[in-house]
Amino acid sequence: MSGSLDNGSFESATALARELGSRGHEISPDGLLEILDGVNATPLENDDESWLEMLGSPSDAGLRQGLLALRAHRASRTPTSSLAGTERLSRLRRALRTQGLDGLVLPRADEHQGEFLPHRSERVAWLSGFTGSAAVVAVLQDRAAILTDGRYTIQVAQQVDTSVWEVRHVTREPLADWISEHVRQGHRIGYDPWLHSIQSARTLEAAVERAGGTPVALEANPIDRLWEHRPAAPLSPAVPHPEQHAGQSSAGKREAIADILAAEGHDATVLTSPESIAWLLNIRGRDVPSTPLCLSFAILDRAGTVELFVDRRKITDATRAHLGNAVSIHPPSGLAAALAHRASRGARLRLDPASSPVWIANHVTASGGTVVTGPDPVVLPRARKNTIEIKGARAAHRRDGTAFVRFLCWFASEAPSGRLDEQGAADRLRAFRAEQELFAGLSFDTISAAGPNGAIVHYRVTPQTNRTIRPGDLYLVDSGAQYRDGTTDITRTIAVGDPGAQARDRFTRVLKAHIALATMRFPEGTTGDRLDAVARAPLWQAGIDFDHGTGHGVGSYLGVHEGPQSISGRSGTVGLEPGMIVSNEPGYYREGEYGIRLENLLVVREEQPEGGERNMLGFETITLAPFDRSMITTDLLAAHEIDWINQYHARVRDTLSPDLEPEVSRWLGEATRPLD
Amino acid sequence: MSGSLDNGSFESATALARELGSRGHEISPDGLLEILDGVNATPLENDDESWLEMLGSPSDAGLRQGLLALRAHRASRTPTSSLAGTERLSRLRRALRTQGLDGLVLPRADEHQGEFLPHRSERVAWLSGFTGSAAVVAVLQDRAAILTDGRYTIQVAQQVDTSVWEVRHVTREPLADWISEHVRQGHRIGYDPWLHSIQSARTLEAAVERAGGTPVALEANPIDRLWEHRPAAPLSPAVPHPEQHAGQSSAGKREAIADILAAEGHDATVLTSPESIAWLLNIRGRDVPSTPLCLSFAILDRAGTVELFVDRRKITDATRAHLGNAVSIHPPSGLAAALAHRASRGARLRLDPASSPVWIANHVTASGGTVVTGPDPVVLPRARKNTIEIKGARAAHRRDGTAFVRFLCWFASEAPSGRLDEQGAADRLRAFRAEQELFAGLSFDTISAAGPNGAIVHYRVTPQTNRTIRPGDLYLVDSGAQYRDGTTDITRTIAVGDPGAQARDRFTRVLKAHIALATMRFPEGTTGDRLDAVARAPLWQAGIDFDHGTGHGVGSYLGVHEGPQSISGRSGTVGLEPGMIVSNEPGYYREGEYGIRLENLLVVREEQPEGGERNMLGFETITLAPFDRSMITTDLLAAHEIDWINQYHARVRDTLSPDLEPEVSRWLGEATRPLD
Repeated sequence: MSGSLDNGSFESATALARELGSRGHEISPDGLLEILDGVNATPLENDDESWLEMLGSPSDAGLRQGLLALRAHRASRTPTSSLAGTERLSRLRRALRTQGLDGLVLPRADEHQGEFLPHRSERVAWLSGFTGSAAVVAVLQDRAAILTDGRYTIQVAQQVDTSVWEVRHVTREPLADWISEHVRQGHRIGYDPWLHSIQSARTLEAAVERAGGTPVALEANPIDRLWEHRPAAPLSPAVPHPEQHAGQSSAGKREAIADILAAEGHDATVLTSPESIAWLLNIRGRDVPSTPLCLSFAILDRAGTVELFVDRRKITDATRAHLGNAVSIHPPSGLAAALAHRASRGARLRLDPASSPVWIANHVTASGGTVVTGPDPVVLPRARKNTIEIKGARAAHRRDGTAFVRFLCWFASEAPSGRLDEQGAADRLRAFRAEQELFAGLSFDTISAAGPNGAIVHYRVTPQTNRTIRPGDLYLVDSGAQYRDGTTDITRTIAVGDPGAQARDRFTRVLKAHIALATMRFPEGTTGDRLDAVARAPLWQAGIDFDHGTGHGVGSYLGVHEGPQSISGRSGTVGLEPGMIVSNEPGYYREGEYGIRLENLLVVREEQPEGGERNMLGFETITLAPFDRSMITTDLLAAHEIDWINQYHARVRDTLSPDLEPEVSRWLGEATRPLD
Repeated sequence: MSGSLDNGSFESATALARELGSRGHEISPDGLLEILDGVNATPLENDDESWLEMLGSPSDAGLRQGLLALRAHRASRTPTSSLAGTERLSRLRRALRTQGLDGLVLPRADEHQGEFLPHRSERVAWLSGFTGSAAVVAVLQDRAAILTDGRYTIQVAQQVDTSVWEVRHVTREPLADWISEHVRQGHRIGYDPWLHSIQSARTLEAAVERAGGTPVALEANPIDRLWEHRPAAPLSPAVPHPEQHAGQSSAGKREAIADILAAEGHDATVLTSPESIAWLLNIRGRDVPSTPLCLSFAILDRAGTVELFVDRRKITDATRAHLGNAVSIHPPSGLAAALAHRASRGARLRLDPASSPVWIANHVTASGGTVVTGPDPVVLPRARKNTIEIKGARAAHRRDGTAFVRFLCWFASEAPSGRLDEQGAADRLRAFRAEQELFAGLSFDTISAAGPNGAIVHYRVTPQTNRTIRPGDLYLVDSGAQYRDGTTDITRTIAVGDPGAQARDRFTRVLKAHIALATMRFPEGTTGDRLDAVARAPLWQAGIDFDHGTGHGVGSYLGVHEGPQSISGRSGTVGLEPGMIVSNEPGYYREGEYGIRLENLLVVREEQPEGGERNMLGFETITLAPFDRSMITTDLLAAHEIDWINQYHARVRDTLSPDLEPEVSRWLGEATRPLD
């Protein structure tokens, strides 16, 4: 019982539960504490009261205050494990031996292959100390390795004990090589089948088998039994995403996807991506940071009905009503039985090989069903935004632009003082956004990077790195927000004083690349990898380049990184389609000096030039904020590029000025003056 | 005995053989006739005496005349089969039944997967009447199909009897579908394992097996026994390709490739592509049209020694000396035993799955060897031209440019008369080229297309289509030559009178696309598919496009279409490297009206712009001929595009003028005047 360690909490909980009961919301003190711990496992801010919906939204002010206070108390006393890192590894090895295992492979992943993980799924961090977003660890009795990518080379060396962990580069020294070097004939190597997709498990199994070992799909993750005070599963209310923002009813979406299943001869599909479930059912939650998700699984069948496997406490009465009769609610533990039931009747179940846990595939097959692999059928319809979603995206970008321009104006007056730091700037930007209507948090952790920090592509400010912004610095800010009508993601690079002619040259060339993509026109069916080179061409002309993709897909009040489309050098099989949203973010990075990135979001649209003969597509830029005029070297620009900048700046000014304070409006007028 | 049907020939042959013998070249009358028939199976012109090398190059004028006359006589009496097309199909079905087969699949291919086939390998044409370059036929007892691609839709319908042949589109209605529709349980379907690559055979076998049939690799091709008067195997002398043109000794090449084999743990590789053998051994032949090949097979082992399987009559004494001791000559029939010998000692033999006949793989495996599939190791080194080959390419292009400019000048004065036709223009162009040093034939059949014929991308003039070039026509000429120091391929589109503003608009946009690729700079390792979109972007802006690749690789006095590099929408896995030659040929086609294509060849080179930070590549344009100024709409061009044209035209003028007659030089001066 979660209360038993904390008598103070338990007494308060008893009193508050009694009061809730007297107002018609029956709950036990332990049940209340569980909800509070679940809320504390979400990213909900302390002053955010939306979670009270899970307790029937009590109106009594005293009761609400009591509940908020008890939540804060529980958060403050969250115990952490006292086990040293090496002791954790030793205990894991002992546990493996007890289970008859010689090793374990553990990726940083959750059951949903999500980008943002709940704390309780950060098993790699618990075991190794490494908190980066991409890693896999491999543990044998006599050695252990952690594999991550080039972004984290420095961080991993700082965070893990390299006397026990071998650090490797995941693509240059792949896991399969480590396995073939160290796994011996007869070794039994465990893995958690909930954390590996079908594809990833098949690759792992093949590598272990080639080395003469036996891969063992574990029934439970051995970390979970060793992890004292493992955080609770996050609990946030699932709320309806109204048709006014979604643009299509859940019933309509379910019917369309069910038609795809029927046409392809599949009886049902198991949706394991909470983004897909959020889109399909028009619901949103706050279970993980940055993306408004309700962690859950679902089975959608060819009749269009859905079994939703989710903690019932997240489903408020309003959401229950919103979901309607075609959606039944079941506890997450019911998924296995539901799959077995369908499988035993010989059902053909479609699973996405890249995102579906292999556990599900194994369970379906073992229960007599047929697994058909195919892409998550929600992914492509979700990517094609409808008219209302596009309208929402435009409106969200207008509000986001207003907040961002206020920030730029504020920054222009504050930064030259030399007293502003990266964290202070990020906080102020967040505050401007939080004032906007329909704001629902940031869409990712703001990258607020001055001078050399800007050259670190995935930089996040920490107390240790927090840099004062100095005259002569280039300041790079990559940020975005979730609004209930749309998701934003914008990067601007701003001069503080004069960063020099070379930086202006590079800035202008990055802007040329940005314009090249923004003005691109291309035939239907063109994949993003083909456009990537067009964006890079102006940089390549100057002998420079950048080492990340030019663009990623973006959701509609959902993930800021959303597939299947992208604009990058990796060859893509998905053609761009009208309504897809992609980012346009070329950059340039000069290690130890500065970074430049200029990012707007684009909506793919049909575009028929006069006299054209083929069906062509193009882009509408929906992000609204000026590019720093002081960084633009007009001599490097062609006439059509100057025209594009002037027209874009005029649109930014004309759209945002009505919403701005006079002094901000004046600043914007100056910032968007036509180029000389 | 080939002479027995033709007493006149035999008598002449007896006399000539006696004379040859008296001059030290012993040969039987039948042996002489065989050589003459082999020569007549090559593309060697009637007045080309180079084949006399195979008879010891007799110096006596009378003897030479006698031999040339007898060759001409044999050519004139080449008998053709009197069998009607449907009778051929019936006989084939009967032959299949006799062999216990229910069907046959037969591609238009030879043992070398060559682009240009010897006549005796045109089995699909013999059986069906279809003479196009891409086809596969499938024959069952009750039905037969011919599959080809969109280029040949009209031609195939004209050439084959559609009452017995079902015509299908090879990609939209693939062979596998036809097989699954019509092959029945238990059907035995034959195929010639010499004509299918390993990959193609695996695909075919899988399709037949899925339909419940059994694929049967045949020991002999059933067509060959039915084909009366099947042409002889081509016989042309294999001549050394001197180091002065090749830039590297065969010994050096063999050592480099042997090192690749050794490094990858392969004992030997079987080279089945005559282009690879020609490059590796620095030899050239005239066995097939357009590409200077000596049809042969070779085994290269990791010690760098070669077994060459070739008709010994092609190997003159000079060539035998040139090949040296590390190359042994064996009859083609010796290949099987040589493979079996190596295989029986457990050799690991590398075979290219896309070009190696499956017969070889089957034979190696059956003989106890191990087949390792991997790309033909010659392909990539062959594609990277060395400094001398690039120098040769420049020199060849200068001579080709001289011939082409003479043609353009002549055309400018002849075409307005309205009496010139497509064939006449093509013939004159060939004559100008034939005057040039080191000329060795055309590199492909000239596309000489006026008006609407220009819109047919793979147009070849025939007596039926030969069109008079009229004022107002656009005339498209795509042509190239083989010179001993390089291969050329150029397309120009020329106005006769005024083809109108719309054609000029399109021409100018195609030129913009051409310039976009010519001036492209890109990082090492960039694949051609990424550059393709950059070239198309100017056309896409106007809502237009073209349905072929933008560029193909080109050999050095070898194939005018040479892999592995290309610039096209198909995703490529091979990065461009310095020294590779590619074509740059964007186009625009308006059905029923005109076609535009502007083609130069490019050499990939290192290019380090000032201030650049990455290792970049770019292109040197080596083709030299003006673009029709009268077709250029300057308003559509950016300043850098006008500069490029003017600089290119100045280079064409300055390079070629010294070699031109005064009136041609004057014409060129006018044609390359800077744009207004």
